[in-house]
Amino acid sequence: MATAGTVIKCKAAVAWEAGKPLSLEEVEVAPPKAQEVRVKIHATGVCHTDAYTLSGSDPEGLFPVILGHEGAGTVESVGEGVTKFKPGYLHPNPQGLMPDKTTRFTCKGKPVFHFMGTSTFSEYTVVAEISLAKVEESAPLDKVCLLGCGISTGYGAALNIAKVEAGSTCAVFGLGAVGLAAAMGCKAASATRIIGIDINPDKFEIAKKFGVTEYVNPKDHSKPIQEVLVEMTDGGVDYSFECIGNVGIMRAALEACHKGWGTSVIIGVAGAGQEISTRPFQLVTGRTWKGTAFGGWKSVESVPKLVDDYMNKKLMVDEFVTHTMPFAQINEAFDIMHAGKRFVSFTFPTLHILHVYII
Amino acid sequence: MATAGTVIKCKAAVAWEAGKPLSLEEVEVAPPKAQEVRVKIHATGVCHTDAYTLSGSDPEGLFPVILGHEGAGTVESVGEGVTKFKPGYLHPNPQGLMPDKTTRFTCKGKPVFHFMGTSTFSEYTVVAEISLAKVEESAPLDKVCLLGCGISTGYGAALNIAKVEAGSTCAVFGLGAVGLAAAMGCKAASATRIIGIDINPDKFEIAKKFGVTEYVNPKDHSKPIQEVLVEMTDGGVDYSFECIGNVGIMRAALEACHKGWGTSVIIGVAGAGQEISTRPFQLVTGRTWKGTAFGGWKSVESVPKLVDDYMNKKLMVDEFVTHTMPFAQINEAFDIMHAGKRFVSFTFPTLHILHVYII
Repeated sequence: MATAGTVIKCKAAVAWEAGKPLSLEEVEVAPPKAQEVRVKIHATGVCHTDAYTLSGSDPEGLFPVILGHEGAGTVESVGEGVTKFKPGYLHPNPQGLMPDKTTRFTCKGKPVFHFMGTSTFSEYTVVAEISLAKVEESAPLDKVCLLGCGISTGYGAALNIAKVEAGSTCAVFGLGAVGLAAAMGCKAASATRIIGIDINPDKFEIAKKFGVTEYVNPKDHSKPIQEVLVEMTDGGVDYSFECIGNVGIMRAALEACHKGWGTSVIIGVAGAGQEISTRPFQLVTGRTWKGTAFGGWKSVESVPKLVDDYMNKKLMVDEFVTHTMPFAQINEAFDIMHAGKRFVSFTFPTLHILHVYII
Repeated sequence: MATAGTVIKCKAAVAWEAGKPLSLEEVEVAPPKAQEVRVKIHATGVCHTDAYTLSGSDPEGLFPVILGHEGAGTVESVGEGVTKFKPGYLHPNPQGLMPDKTTRFTCKGKPVFHFMGTSTFSEYTVVAEISLAKVEESAPLDKVCLLGCGISTGYGAALNIAKVEAGSTCAVFGLGAVGLAAAMGCKAASATRIIGIDINPDKFEIAKKFGVTEYVNPKDHSKPIQEVLVEMTDGGVDYSFECIGNVGIMRAALEACHKGWGTSVIIGVAGAGQEISTRPFQLVTGRTWKGTAFGGWKSVESVPKLVDDYMNKKLMVDEFVTHTMPFAQINEAFDIMHAGKRFVSFTFPTLHILHVYII
């Protein structure tokens, strides 16, 4: 492990402004300060949350910025006082700065913001010690990086947030990575019926692998999708999951739940300023509306366990990887993601030694 | 117990049409059919739900109808096959008819609809056997009738729906009967702070008796009430309860909850067609939105236990009764309720022997 103190020059994908492609630049990464760790990123996923901020829709988005939050890498150097990884919640640095309110990135003489406390779209990044989870050394970085966001979120939404019970009926709206992970969680909880809802019929065959037992394409029906589901399930599903980010579907997912006990979990990220709505009667008659950003996991302690579960084949991860490409093609990855041609996630492997995991 | 078979003529408060006062009429109450019970009503409460239907705002409201759903009485006669009170959920007869799709009420030669399976604004009513709970014989009818709706709902919202934990911070929006009952439930669960919110400062002194520890009048603040509460509680309350029926306050009650774990329960009945809304971010960051119509109690089995708890002084009921008046003054009771001069509930005692309890 190198001693802290030197500036590293490396490649990073800089988002100079909203709505423009990322720009591969040489950036300077300052050494970690106290309670910080500089990490060599070995693999990262791309996520719709990155795209959302890049689009300019996030009112709290700051530019220029280095995006990326599904990363895995090794410790390059540590700042003063870093002795171990302390348990704690994710520390997303919402102002785009490190806890001391400064940035460790510069590019062309300008400071560049951090993103979600991670900024994994860079060969090197600096993160707070409390944002790091130490995982099993033999785990493949280009797979387990996906446990940093999408897979864990969907899987945990079923297990920790909805607390799906054995024998229950579930509905998963949107069969992207998060939706498939939610289905996988429902299956792990021994749900009997797992109904996948998507407007792309190609997804059903793939979804079966993750536990989906039935498929509904809203385009095949003239009535609202919640009515279709209520009829299919004799009154509504026990649990539903919105994995798209569409506020109309969030309502449908709630209203597809059985009165008296149905629980709906919002996982998708809606556009800025959009609101969910429903008649309060939907809740008064016994439904529960919840949401989750990371599936109810406590990052530092849970991610290593999820990695272990993956290594012990209790949890699928490899099946979520549809594309693997070099870092330099990151804009192409976003294009594919936007085109909806991916079912799941990308990784950008660069190396292979795992030590720390950025959460 | 009389044998079924004869029509009873008695007084009832008939709602001939929406928006008009109730009319004291002589009505005919047909004998109970199979699985039905004719009940002599001894006391009934009035509730905003009765007023809501009477106003014409309920799109499912039917006229003419005999309203009332917080009743206590004795069995007058039983129909064929009635042997005991079977456990089960409330059976509200939503079409205003008995399970066989006919009515037992006529007035001036016209059929009159039932209401919520109860129609307690009548000296005699016919209900389905499964809508009856048998309670302790010595319980005072003019008190325990209130356990048929408001008190049980608020109290159960805290204990069964929110599942308030010891040491927690709670907010109760609206200090009417339901709100005070919710506060009583929070206190029973050993909440540390119970913040009462109402625009009528007279209510605070009374609310203390029910467990409220602090009082906030939104009129004393220029900023949104949810912001006031978030500041008062260092990030938000653990549990909140909307006991008014105002969709704007329902939103405020949710947004006053702490991110990560706060739970808000809707109990108030909103106007027809009104919707609740919020940013999905409120849920994605870990809040839960729920609601309840009867506090999560299973009526037939729970109401007798609540009556026992009252008789054993574990549960306050007497303190909720602000007015007691003869049945003939029922319209005056509605006037007082609408004027907001009541804190809690009314009863109309007529007799004193308890046998069954209409839920």
